[in-house]
Amino acid sequence: MKYNAIVGQSGGPTAAINATLSGVIRGCRESGKVETLYGMYNGIEGALKENFCSLFDVIDSEEKHRLLEGTPSSALGSCRKKLPKTDDPEAKATYEKLFNVFEKYNIKYFFYIGGNDSMDTVAKISAYAKENNKEIFAIGVPKTIDNDLMGTDHTPGFGSAAKYIAATVAETARDSAVYDLKSVVIFEIMGRDAGWLTASAALPSLNSSAAPDFIYLPERAFDEDKFIADIKSKLEVKNTVLVAVSEGIKNADGKYISASERSEMKDAFGHAYLSGTGKALEMVVRDKIGCKVRSIELNVLQRCASHIASETDINESVAIGRFAGLKCTEGESGKLAVFVRSDSEEYSVTYDLKDVALIANKIKKVPDEYINDEGNNVTKACLEYILPLIMGENKIEYVNGIPAQIEIKPYK
Amino acid sequence: MKYNAIVGQSGGPTAAINATLSGVIRGCRESGKVETLYGMYNGIEGALKENFCSLFDVIDSEEKHRLLEGTPSSALGSCRKKLPKTDDPEAKATYEKLFNVFEKYNIKYFFYIGGNDSMDTVAKISAYAKENNKEIFAIGVPKTIDNDLMGTDHTPGFGSAAKYIAATVAETARDSAVYDLKSVVIFEIMGRDAGWLTASAALPSLNSSAAPDFIYLPERAFDEDKFIADIKSKLEVKNTVLVAVSEGIKNADGKYISASERSEMKDAFGHAYLSGTGKALEMVVRDKIGCKVRSIELNVLQRCASHIASETDINESVAIGRFAGLKCTEGESGKLAVFVRSDSEEYSVTYDLKDVALIANKIKKVPDEYINDEGNNVTKACLEYILPLIMGENKIEYVNGIPAQIEIKPYK
Repeated sequence: MKYNAIVGQSGGPTAAINATLSGVIRGCRESGKVETLYGMYNGIEGALKENFCSLFDVIDSEEKHRLLEGTPSSALGSCRKKLPKTDDPEAKATYEKLFNVFEKYNIKYFFYIGGNDSMDTVAKISAYAKENNKEIFAIGVPKTIDNDLMGTDHTPGFGSAAKYIAATVAETARDSAVYDLKSVVIFEIMGRDAGWLTASAALPSLNSSAAPDFIYLPERAFDEDKFIADIKSKLEVKNTVLVAVSEGIKNADGKYISASERSEMKDAFGHAYLSGTGKALEMVVRDKIGCKVRSIELNVLQRCASHIASETDINESVAIGRFAGLKCTEGESGKLAVFVRSDSEEYSVTYDLKDVALIANKIKKVPDEYINDEGNNVTKACLEYILPLIMGENKIEYVNGIPAQIEIKPYK
Repeated sequence: MKYNAIVGQSGGPTAAINATLSGVIRGCRESGKVETLYGMYNGIEGALKENFCSLFDVIDSEEKHRLLEGTPSSALGSCRKKLPKTDDPEAKATYEKLFNVFEKYNIKYFFYIGGNDSMDTVAKISAYAKENNKEIFAIGVPKTIDNDLMGTDHTPGFGSAAKYIAATVAETARDSAVYDLKSVVIFEIMGRDAGWLTASAALPSLNSSAAPDFIYLPERAFDEDKFIADIKSKLEVKNTVLVAVSEGIKNADGKYISASERSEMKDAFGHAYLSGTGKALEMVVRDKIGCKVRSIELNVLQRCASHIASETDINESVAIGRFAGLKCTEGESGKLAVFVRSDSEEYSVTYDLKDVALIANKIKKVPDEYINDEGNNVTKACLEYILPLIMGENKIEYVNGIPAQIEIKPYK
């Protein structure tokens, strides 16, 4: 007997999150167990509002699958809504509404593509279903450029962001070194709690291209005096010193370096709102060294540059979505689909499921062996870990000289 | 009889300036009249310091030519040095030194790849040679992402920057629209005096992709009240309003928007916050509208993104360099190589020479017919002018997942 399924995207978008969506569509179709696959708009908010489309109808050809896989950001929109705790008395109405919608649309399979916070939603839906004897199978599919999810070798979206960062640093390094004068360039790279993306800035060193001389990750307390000493000593032996910093670096007192930390702004999850770490350090260098200095914030471009997406990342993102589609329709629930890297010398991954409750709301940091003793760069082992994830260039179509995209519109 | 030649790069780098260098090497080689082609490091400064390499030796295969054509920024370095006026009494020593170097190295042909200021150098060297009966032929080859050189249909480097901007805006537009809330995104794009690059942000509209709702160029005085009114009215009909502004926009009093906002802001260290134009307008929107707002400075990435260079731009940049190489060795001097666009419906260019003295130090602005009546967007005619310049994707080699580059080192 066939049932319906529903899929949503949540959290910050990536260049690969639509590839995973495409994979879920492929998996559900191949399973032969799904009649209609609903796409919910703006994540769980769309489920509550019944703001849907029918994905088998919208993505009905291999060409459209490929177009979706090359379109950045969340085609179904996103949200940052967190479901209340299932034992919260006020939460009852929300869960009842949600499960009424599932019943109304004959939905049995629930897919949520997202990061830490989204896995929390999967855990809660799965738990509520079990507690209330509802036959709803909920599976999480990972997505985050930050690569900070526990339980998986890496996350879909990270490889493409890392490739963009590596290429951009290699190109900008050339741009920064053309004048015969002393200068410092500071790249500010995303990463609130984990330094994976910032570590990727070191990849151009594998090609003997100019790479950052210093890399500061949130895994180490940032020492401004050491930072200035690092740069000063390097400026004695070369003209252009390149630095990469994570937006989330903090000093030994746990205070963000970011210029806007005083504003005490917080996002919907209570995370401190960060901007301007690079700008803050630019001003420190100008004050204490006085040479030419420029900060470059890679900004949202690092998470949506489909035009230079990693082929490995996109292929794996499709595959893990498909895997989730097949497993959920086999009756798995409360799980997160994960990558398992093989131990063999040649890189390969297999796919597995892990209990989502053990993974949600945790953060995988860059381990000690990937950071050098001085805490101002990454090790060779770190680059060896990242390198396979950026390999290959995903082929995309260009129309009028611009990357082609597909748009998925809701019913209403 | 064979003589030697010399080539340099000057001013801000682009993604196509090495393609033009490759073209000059091709042209000089094909001419059969050049024994050694010297590359001077850091522009005219390298000529004065005899800081050279031998380009026929360094770029000695088609493979290396292609690698050079895909490497961003100035492979020979750059400078911002302007030669003194030839009739300046104190200038004599500089010119004598320079022409002594030419004599010492048996140099007859001089090539300078650059923008406005660089053409001034070509004009002066050519004039000095004529005034002093020196047999030095000097040719300028254009380069600037700004597209603001007179006398040429467009400039090498512009098409690749425009393509990067169009792709980035199309991708970021998707990233910005995922949440179901009112928000404004402001792209700050290069262009102090001319709005060509900012106009390119409108190209995604040709694909029905999200494109800026408003575009403000330095060709029009910027009116903050009108800007806020524009955004407010658009926010009534859509969630995400996209704005592109040139870094160089000024108000009716001729004051830069970036400068006028700076004094008020302080960073976490109590320093005046040196914001750009986009950041300044971000703060204006936050103050006067209060919705979510983000500014994105495309920064130097827009001029060095070889990984998404326009094939048309790179091919034309090679061709104009080759043309200059052939013409100079035929005895042309004091000229700038230019593009002439055909009148036919299908886009094509031919190459010509124009008197460099008529072109140096002038600025080609975006003409009135390319800007809408309200002064807050560009016209269809503008997009039709830019479109052919961004067509095609230059094929580059990737090593370790990162664009391959070539480095050219000086003798010493």
